[in-house]
Formats: sequence, structure tokens, C-alpha cells
Amino acid sequence: MKTGIESLLNPHSVVVFGVSELEGKAGNSVVKHLLEGSIRVYGINPKGGTLFGLPIYRRIEELPEVPDLAVIALPAELAPDTVRACAGRGIGAVIVIAGGFSEIGEAGEKLELELKEAITGTRTRILGPNTLGLLIPRLKLDTIFLPSSHLRRPSPGNIAIISQSGSGVMGALDIGAFYGVGLGAFVGLGNRIDIDENELIEYFGDDPHTSAIGMYLESFVDAQRFVDACGRVSSRKPLVLVKAGRSSAGARAVALHTGSLAGSDRVTGGVLSQLGIFRAYDDEELLDAVRVLAHGKPLAGRRAVILTGGGGMGVITADYVEAQEKGIAASLATLDPNTEARLARIALPYASVRNPIDLTPVAGNDMYEAALEILQDDPGVDVIIVCLMYHNAKKGDKFTERLCHWGKQGKKPLIAAAIGSETTIRAIRQMEAAGVLALPSFRRAVKAVDLLAQRAEFLRRENSPGQSVSMVSVPGKVDTEQAFVPKPGIPLAEDEVKAVLRKRGICTPDSIVLPGGELPAEIPFPFPHVIKIRSSDVLHKTELKGVVLNIKNPETLEKTVKEMRSRFPGQDLLMERMEPSGVEIIVGLIEDATFGLSIMCGIGGILAELYRDVTFRRVPINSLDADNMLRDLKAHALFEGFRGIRVSREAVIDLLLKVSSLGLDLRGNIDQMDLNPVIVREDKAIVVDAKLIWKAEITA
Amino acid sequence: MKTGIESLLNPHSVVVFGVSELEGKAGNSVVKHLLEGSIRVYGINPKGGTLFGLPIYRRIEELPEVPDLAVIALPAELAPDTVRACAGRGIGAVIVIAGGFSEIGEAGEKLELELKEAITGTRTRILGPNTLGLLIPRLKLDTIFLPSSHLRRPSPGNIAIISQSGSGVMGALDIGAFYGVGLGAFVGLGNRIDIDENELIEYFGDDPHTSAIGMYLESFVDAQRFVDACGRVSSRKPLVLVKAGRSSAGARAVALHTGSLAGSDRVTGGVLSQLGIFRAYDDEELLDAVRVLAHGKPLAGRRAVILTGGGGMGVITADYVEAQEKGIAASLATLDPNTEARLARIALPYASVRNPIDLTPVAGNDMYEAALEILQDDPGVDVIIVCLMYHNAKKGDKFTERLCHWGKQGKKPLIAAAIGSETTIRAIRQMEAAGVLALPSFRRAVKAVDLLAQRAEFLRRENSPGQSVSMVSVPGKVDTEQAFVPKPGIPLAEDEVKAVLRKRGICTPDSIVLPGGELPAEIPFPFPHVIKIRSSDVLHKTELKGVVLNIKNPETLEKTVKEMRSRFPGQDLLMERMEPSGVEIIVGLIEDATFGLSIMCGIGGILAELYRDVTFRRVPINSLDADNMLRDLKAHALFEGFRGIRVSREAVIDLLLKVSSLGLDLRGNIDQMDLNPVIVREDKAIVVDAKLIWKAEITA
Repeated sequence: MKTGIESLLNPHSVVVFGVSELEGKAGNSVVKHLLEGSIRVYGINPKGGTLFGLPIYRRIEELPEVPDLAVIALPAELAPDTVRACAGRGIGAVIVIAGGFSEIGEAGEKLELELKEAITGTRTRILGPNTLGLLIPRLKLDTIFLPSSHLRRPSPGNIAIISQSGSGVMGALDIGAFYGVGLGAFVGLGNRIDIDENELIEYFGDDPHTSAIGMYLESFVDAQRFVDACGRVSSRKPLVLVKAGRSSAGARAVALHTGSLAGSDRVTGGVLSQLGIFRAYDDEELLDAVRVLAHGKPLAGRRAVILTGGGGMGVITADYVEAQEKGIAASLATLDPNTEARLARIALPYASVRNPIDLTPVAGNDMYEAALEILQDDPGVDVIIVCLMYHNAKKGDKFTERLCHWGKQGKKPLIAAAIGSETTIRAIRQMEAAGVLALPSFRRAVKAVDLLAQRAEFLRRENSPGQSVSMVSVPGKVDTEQAFVPKPGIPLAEDEVKAVLRKRGICTPDSIVLPGGELPAEIPFPFPHVIKIRSSDVLHKTELKGVVLNIKNPETLEKTVKEMRSRFPGQDLLMERMEPSGVEIIVGLIEDATFGLSIMCGIGGILAELYRDVTFRRVPINSLDADNMLRDLKAHALFEGFRGIRVSREAVIDLLLKVSSLGLDLRGNIDQMDLNPVIVREDKAIVVDAKLIWKAEITA
Repeated sequence: MKTGIESLLNPHSVVVFGVSELEGKAGNSVVKHLLEGSIRVYGINPKGGTLFGLPIYRRIEELPEVPDLAVIALPAELAPDTVRACAGRGIGAVIVIAGGFSEIGEAGEKLELELKEAITGTRTRILGPNTLGLLIPRLKLDTIFLPSSHLRRPSPGNIAIISQSGSGVMGALDIGAFYGVGLGAFVGLGNRIDIDENELIEYFGDDPHTSAIGMYLESFVDAQRFVDACGRVSSRKPLVLVKAGRSSAGARAVALHTGSLAGSDRVTGGVLSQLGIFRAYDDEELLDAVRVLAHGKPLAGRRAVILTGGGGMGVITADYVEAQEKGIAASLATLDPNTEARLARIALPYASVRNPIDLTPVAGNDMYEAALEILQDDPGVDVIIVCLMYHNAKKGDKFTERLCHWGKQGKKPLIAAAIGSETTIRAIRQMEAAGVLALPSFRRAVKAVDLLAQRAEFLRRENSPGQSVSMVSVPGKVDTEQAFVPKPGIPLAEDEVKAVLRKRGICTPDSIVLPGGELPAEIPFPFPHVIKIRSSDVLHKTELKGVVLNIKNPETLEKTVKEMRSRFPGQDLLMERMEPSGVEIIVGLIEDATFGLSIMCGIGGILAELYRDVTFRRVPINSLDADNMLRDLKAHALFEGFRGIRVSREAVIDLLLKVSSLGLDLRGNIDQMDLNPVIVREDKAIVVDAKLIWKAEITA
């Protein structure tokens, strides 16, 4: 017997409740769309009779078989009883189209609960309610009630789109279909009372008809399951996500720097990167990325050669390849002198055979053909971008066919870019149908290079032995003997936080507590010193002038301590050995509302705060994650010998791993932790200041 | 008598040389396109006869009148003689379509020179050669040889496009026409042997049919004239520029930091900003920006309300409005409680009346109408973005008409965004025809808000009394009495550069030279001190360990000087009073290959070098330019009291103005100057280190 998901996504028979003869009704268009395919269709309407040549049954009991799938095109109020009847008959899956459930508030919530109860204890699964439904062109399985005159149906393809919202992706599917972008499956999740994104990610992860999965989500049903599902799938198939509602998520207590630098969206960005999920920012980017990743092979590198017959197009494209400011990473290939010489032989005398190659507008098909052939052999080329202009009557279907040939058979990956109306769109459709990447924008073509190179980088990481970045398989490696878990909820003073750190092998400066601000008879470490007030409730010591740096001799020390005692009577003080300078970074932990405990790494100091040069990952991380965190930073050159500054990259990675492991132990209790600054020198990373806030402290 | 430009852009009669009966020939399609309009058309072909119902003349002398314009659709070799004949007859303007001139090298260069000579001493002007020609839909003046089946002709509109390249903008015009974007004029510059961008900027600046000007340029014919022309036009009409070939321009001597931070493209960016020119990065952005600025009114602010019937579209759009990472500046309007209350009365019970407003997919025309009416009154709203979905059969032409009504008549500016194929494109065309902004992407709609707000900001600046940012009208205000102009070419030591600065009223630390490294009997300023080697040929003192900081007492001073003497025997030293810390910035001058002497301001120190947080303007600048330079910096909050850091913004602006004025005096001689670091505190900005390189030093 089929599983519920199989009944939904590969049904042999489907029954529609609420079949209607009225144009514009869901029960009218859904049946008509379904009848175009070869899935057996049954219609139910209490009036009975015949519609669209189909006998209409009055009740579910009258059906000659138990269909795999039911589509309920009835008002919300009628849905629970109908679903109950479906479940009673043993139907595998039910799609509830109607809105009017939890999304409208209290009244709808009650109805939604009834829906859930209707399938409790049965094998029947629900998609929706409040969903645009399902579209699988290959099966002509189309339960979308919108007329195809208004929403184009794509031809069969190999991408799956899972969307929490109809409107968030519908326009892109429509314009995509117009450009010939094929679709494997679209599933509208609606209110997700049963079937959710995680189950579908796993399904499409195994589905032989799906090469890449795109998602539009405004929230995660269960972030841990999402992480697990993506972790399992992403090394097999590329995943692209629009996580919408980025900006509104931010509100949270921001007692520490880590908190103020986070904002839920930055954590999300880090976690997606950790999972190898591509991030798109809107429907157009989503569709672009998912089709590029489905069609294109991962690129060994980013060295692009641009081939064109119009100089301007080549220059615009080269600008995108080389310019950093648009955030697209690619580079212009330097052609082998032999390649240039061979090109010069086949091109017109005044063509440009350097990259970007301009064959001139009069170049015919043969010249492109010859150039493409020559470029196949250049070892310095990772990808060929062909910029095309179909405004010349000479460039027609034959030309496109040859491009498709090279796109399919060539050794070098080929990406076409062409802007324009009818003739251009026709060519893009032709290439899309042949499975050759063609994008209607130079920018988007260059972005495709970046995406395919990122995919290759991710796969290389995934395949380096013992270095899976899947967080599912990386338990925290905590030596419980060594682990010191303080009592959550009781505030910690700086030296207590540092004691915890030292037990995990993290470096901190030499330090002693001065109870009541009294100096000891003997000072156990050399000058210079730092004096700070010691208190678990003073988070921002500097702002209270509770820190004195660079105390160089016993006289100044005595004077300082005396002065501090008078300003903070009875207060314990902390005396530390002052660390020589180095590169200042900040490392932190934060409980993210969605992804749970996450680790931050960033550049320290005032400027870094302004530039917000920080990155996040979900705890636990492995050493590749830690290394990638450093690479994420805009100032990453600091860890690579910039201007002769010697900084131990290894020490930072080691620190991040230890903090992650500590976080794993404290997870559930910790709200935020700041190690700020951490001074990094050529041999080590030393935590100079440390603060920790328990969850209880925040919620209290 | 018409000027040459008027003969070109508003001819009453036109003659085509090389009229041909062969489909696909330029002389065939050009005549056919011209015959569709009401301009008198003459054809010339040595064979004579009749073509397209037109008597064909054999020679120019046979024409019954002297036409305003000639289009030469003949091979390159025939062009010079033909142009000579045209000039002889007194024809106002000639378009030479053919390629095969300087762009193909030596042979072509000779031919191009002949073309130039053909009009020398005559009133005849040339557009081209090697040009796509001219398209003015209002006049049905169309000399573009590409067939309209392959390149759509836009309907009449109010934007002018000036392009050095055909292929660089043609695709955007084609897809733009497809979406109904109107065109005032397109002029292909080709090889620009006579008519160039600067003359056309002035022409369209005065042209009543033009509301905004878009340009695609790979180089400037004359950067000073470009600056002058744009300076005159940009306060009257918005200008948008794709400056292509951004990435390749960078190669230059980079002896100083200013040089290494420049790269020609950053200077270009600063100069465009100074002139109020909007920068686009490709053809799509160009067309978007120019149509938005032509149709839309400048926005008083960036507070956008989003109105939609599809939650997902609203969320995606709100994300673009609020997210910083995409570089689009806008903000979500906070609706007045009264607005929300009124919306709640007209909307469905489960609609969302908070911004982004979601009327739900079932909302009908009346509900949108009522919502738009309510939003007109909210004082917190600067612009309304309506996100539309035409996939529902209910949304049709009538709905679009009402939107157009609000777009045209409403008090609040309205921008529509809709993604999709036929039905969506139809609606966008309808809005475009009504002059209502409608963009086929949520991102591009939000970008429109940013552009229109930027335009308003520029106009406010322009109109603040005495503060014209036009560089034409701002002479350098140099007090020649005070000015000390050193002898260019003779290298300057640090103290000599600083002496120049002090004469211009720029602060530097107390300082004396120690000839041969000998300390004076009396030290003229208090500790701490700095000792540096003094030499005009040591540009990077720090790297040679030629600088010792923070010398606190006479003993250390003596020791240091002694040690320096032994390491640099016979060398003069420079002793300065060490400045207390502050915010470090870098200020510089650089001779840009295109725009001449330019001034840089940026955040100083190692991190700033990594983040490249610098900005440029052309010299001279005024105080508004200086202020805008600070605003350009990513770390601009530093000058606005960030974390209680007190920094004199005024001192920085004053320093920039003085450096600009010094640059004006030294222009032509100076290659690069670095003031780095400049320490800024709450009362002043002090130049701690200064280097200057003359042009002669670089070229030598």
C-alpha cells in the first residue's frame, strides 16, 4: 500500500469533492485540469449527474474504488466532515484547498483542530488547508484552481518547489513557464497541519525525477527536523531557500554584543551556509538558483570566458564577473596564448580574441561554432558564458540548436545570456527544453557561475574524509570528566566565566580576585596589570569606568586599587595580567529563537561593531565549519598574513570548537555569552573579557 | 536654419543612400521604417527607378530639396565621398551606419580621418560611424537597420537613451518595449567622431519631450565637458549612467594608500554621486532607473506602505524594504492607528491591516479602492507599493484602470509590482501607457522607491542656498597670499609636506627636525614624543622601523635617537609631539586618469584597509560634497556620536575643503598625496603623517 505522501505525489486515482459546472469555481477548474491527464478522476457532488463527460457521484461510498488522493474544493465548514469520510474510506491523502482556518483567527482555529482530529489515528494525510495545491506536470497532476489562462503551467522538468505561500512563488512560476522553465513538482504547503516541508524535503531528496529543491518558507515547522532533513539531502541534491520575513524577526533581548550583532536573520544565514543551502531573496532568485543548480554541473572553478558578438554585452558581463560590489564571485579567465592564436585564425581581423571575446555582430554561426570548439581545450577556462543578441535576423533556431549542442556535448560548461523580447524568449525556451542553461540577464548568468562554483565547493567539503558538515552526525565531543557545568540561573562573575573556559582548555590571562579590593601580600604575575570591578551584575564594566588598563608598577597599582575601593566600596576587584596587543576578535554564543544555540565569530573593536563583520553557525560546529566562519568575514585576510600581521588561524579555530563544545553542554540554559575581546597573536588566542547570561536571567 | 543636432533629431526630410530592394540590407529596412512616419523620405541609388512607391534618385544633386538628414547605408569605403557630397549640398546631419572604421584598426582609422575631413569647415554634422543609429518613436524617425520583428520598437515616451554601444542597451530596449516602456529617443553614438554624448546631454536637457536621460558609456570623450554638461542638466532632469568597463580600468601606479584604495571605478562612483548622476550597472538597471525617474515624482521620504492581496508577495517586498544587505534604502511606514482602524472597517475580518497590508486573495476591486483612498491620508506614508497578482481571473483591465487612477490622481505616489507572464505583462503595459510606475519585480519596485528618494535628496541639496553641488560654479577659493606652492618635481620630506599643510591652516603636531639626528639643547614641546627618520625618499617609514612612538621621558628619547643614528647614519630625524588617540581617518589626493585630481576620505587603520571604507570626489569640492563624503562611509556613525565617541565632523569637513583647495592649486603637478593617519578628536583633526608624490616622480 502507498504511503500518504506517495498517494499525494504519485496517485493513480483522484476524487474531487465539490465538482461544479460554474466557471471560476475551484471545483470546476480543478476537475478540468485533472481530466487533461491520465490519472483516473472521480467527481463528487450531492446533485449527482454528469459533468465534463464524467459520472458524478453523490457520496464517497458510491465510488467504485478507493482513490489514492482526494481534493476537497468545498468551503471550510464542510472540510472536517469530508476529510473524516475520506479517512474512513482509507484514502491516502487529502488536499484541503479552502482558506478560513487558523489564518483567520479563533473561529478558524477551531475548524483546523477538527480537521486534525478527522485524520487522527488513520493513515490519511492532509496537505493544507489554505493551499494552492499541487502541480506535477509530468503526471498532469494539477489541483491548482487558478485558470491556466492566468497562471501558465510549466512543462515537465526536474525541479521541485515547496512553498508555504502561493503568492510568494506563483509569479515566478508563471514567468518561468513563459521562458520555458520546466517543473518537476510544486507543492503549496498552506497551513501545514500535517504534511510539512521536512517530509517533502526527504521525499524529493529520494525522488528520481527531482534534481534540485527550491523552498519558500516564512517559518520552520520544526527547525531541528529541517536541519536534519536538509543535512541528509543537501549533499545529494542542491537546496535553495527563500526564508522570507527576514527583517521582522529581529526583536529579542540584546544584553550582550553577540545578541545585538545577531538578529535572527544573521543566524539563519550562517545555519543555511553550514547546511550547504543556497539562499535566495525573492521568487525570481529562487527559480533562477534552483534551475541553475538542477541543470548545471558543479563548476571546478570560477574562471569564465565570455563569448559574444556585441562588445557592450561582453563588457557589462565582464564587469559583473570582475566587480566585487555586487557580491557575485567569479573571475575572468586568462586565455592561453594558443587559444588566442587559434581564435584569431577563425575570427574576423578586427574581432577581439581576448576575454571578453567579441566576434563582432557580423559573425555567423560557423564562427561561433569554431570559437566554441577552440575554447573547449583551454585549461584556464572553467565555464563559457555566451552573451547573445537575437535582434539580428541571422541568429535564429539553427544558431540556438548549435549552442544547445555545445551546451550538451561540450567539455566545458556553457551558460547563455540573452536579453530581449520574442526572438530572445524563443531562443531561451529552446535552450531550456534542451537542458542548456540560458538566462534572460547578464547579471543572472554570472550569478549562475557563482552558484555552480559554490555547489562544487560544498561538495568538496562534504567529501573530505571525516569532515561531514552535516550537523546530524556531529555529536559534541565533550570530555565529561573535564566538563565543569556551573549551576544555571546563578549569575557568574567574569572570573567565574573564565574559570569555566579554562577548564575547557581555553586561554585566559593570569588573574586573581582581590576580595573587598584588598591587594595580596605578593603579586603572582608580572606587570603590566589590569584592574576591573568583579561583579556578576555589572555587564558593562567599561561604561562604568570599572576598568583600569596598563598599570605598570606597584605605585600605580596601589593608587588605582585605592581609588577603585573608594568608588566601589566593599566591592571585590579582579586583577589580571595585561595581555600584549594582537588582533581583536569577538566570539559568542546565543540562543536563537529558531535554531537554538548558535556560535558567533567576528572582528572585534569599535570599527567591527560599525561594520558588523560577524558570522554565525548553529552549535555544534566541526573544524570545517569553524574554518568557513573565518572565510565568511569580510576581513578574513587578517587570518591569512595581511600586511605581515601574524595571527594563528588554528588557535581561533580551536577556540571556536571549544566554545561550541561548551555551548553543547550548556545548551538549554545559556542565553548569551560574549568573549570580547579575544586577543589573537601568532601563537594563541586569549579571552580577555568574558560574560555569560543564563536564560533565567533574561526571562526573570 | 536648423542646427546640425536639430537636423539630426527633428528632421523634416531625410535622404537614404544605398536604398535597396534586398530584404535584410540596411538600405532596405531603414527606408521601410522611415516610410511609416510622416517625415519626407528620399532614396538614392545609382540604379534609379522606383522602390516602395518612392522615386529613387541617382545622385544627390537631383533631389528636389536639401534634406535635413542623410542616412548613409553604404559600405565604409563609400562613406567619405558620400558625406562630402552631403556637406557640399548643405545637409545638416549625416548618420554613417557602417562599421569598418577606427574600431578595426589602422585601415579603418584612415577612412575615419577622411570622414572627419569631409565635414571640416562645413555646417554638416556626423553621427557615427559604426552606429545603430537613431530612433524617435514620436516622430516615427527610425534609422535602425534591425528588423522590427527582431527588435521591438517602443511606443513614444519621455526618456532619452544615449549609447556608445548598440548591444549594450538593445536587449533592454527590446524587452522594455515588450513591457510597454515608452521611449523619447535613442541615439547610438558609434565611434563618436563628431556628435558625442556631451552635446546630446545638453540637447536632451533642453528638450521638452525628454524627462530623464539614460546613458551607456564605456569611456568619456571629454570628462571635463561631461562634468560640465551633467552639472548643468542634472538639477533639471535626472541622469542615469552605465559606466561600463569598470573593472579593467584599475591599472595605475599605487605608491600610496590613496592610490591603492582608488581604482578608477571608485573615483568614477564618487564623481557621479557629486554630479547627482544615478549609476546603473547594466542595461536592465539603466532602463529601470531612467523610466522610474522620468515617470515618478521625487519622494519626500522613504517610508513605504505595502498593499497586497497575497501575503507572500508582501513579505518578500517588506524584506527588501527593510533589509540592508541588498543595498536598497527604504523603510516600512508605521501606519497611523486611525489608518489601521479605517482599513479594518473596509477589509475582511482576517485581513492584515498592519504594514505590509494583506487584503487577502479574495479582496475585490472595491476593497483595494477603499484601501488606496484611506492610505492617501496617512501622514506617515511617503509612497504606496502595490504588489499585484494577476493570476486570479478577478484581476483584470478594470482593476488596472483603477490602479492607474490612483497612480495618476492620488496624493501619494504609487508604484506597482507584479510578476508573471501574459496577464501580468498586459497590466504592466496598461499602467506604463498611463504613466504609472509598474515594475515586473518586487526588488525593482523597492529600488524605485530608493531612486526617487535619492532624487529628492539631490534636489534638496541643489536648492539649498549657496550650496550648488555643480562643480562648474565652484572655483577654488584659494588665498594666494597664503598659498605656498612648492616646486613640483622636487621630492618633499614629511615635514615639508606638513609645512605646506600648515600654511593652508591644516593642523599638524608640534615638530622639529633633528639635522643629522642631533638633539637640540632644549626640547620645545612636552612628552610623549615620536621620532621618525626624515627623508623624501622613504615612503613607508613604518615598514623600515623608521618610526618610534610614545617616547615618554628624556632618557628614552636619548636612547632612541642614539639607536636611530646608528641604524640610519647621517640621516636627519623628525621629532614630533605624540598626539593622543582619537578616530583615525585617511585623507588623500589622487590624479585620476579620467576625472583628474580627486580627493579621498576614508576610515584609517588596518581594518579600514581591509574594509576599503573610502570615498572619492573630484577636486574642488564644496562643503555639501564634503558632508556627503562622510555620509558615504559605511562607518559614518563614527561622526554622529556612535558609542559616545566625540569626533568633530566640522573639523573633518574643514580639512577636506582645505585639502581640496590645496589640490586645486597643485593640480597638474600632484600625483598622489596621503594624509594618513589623521587623528580626529572632539575639537580638531590633526594630520599625523603626510606624504606627497609629484607627477614627475611617478613618470620618472
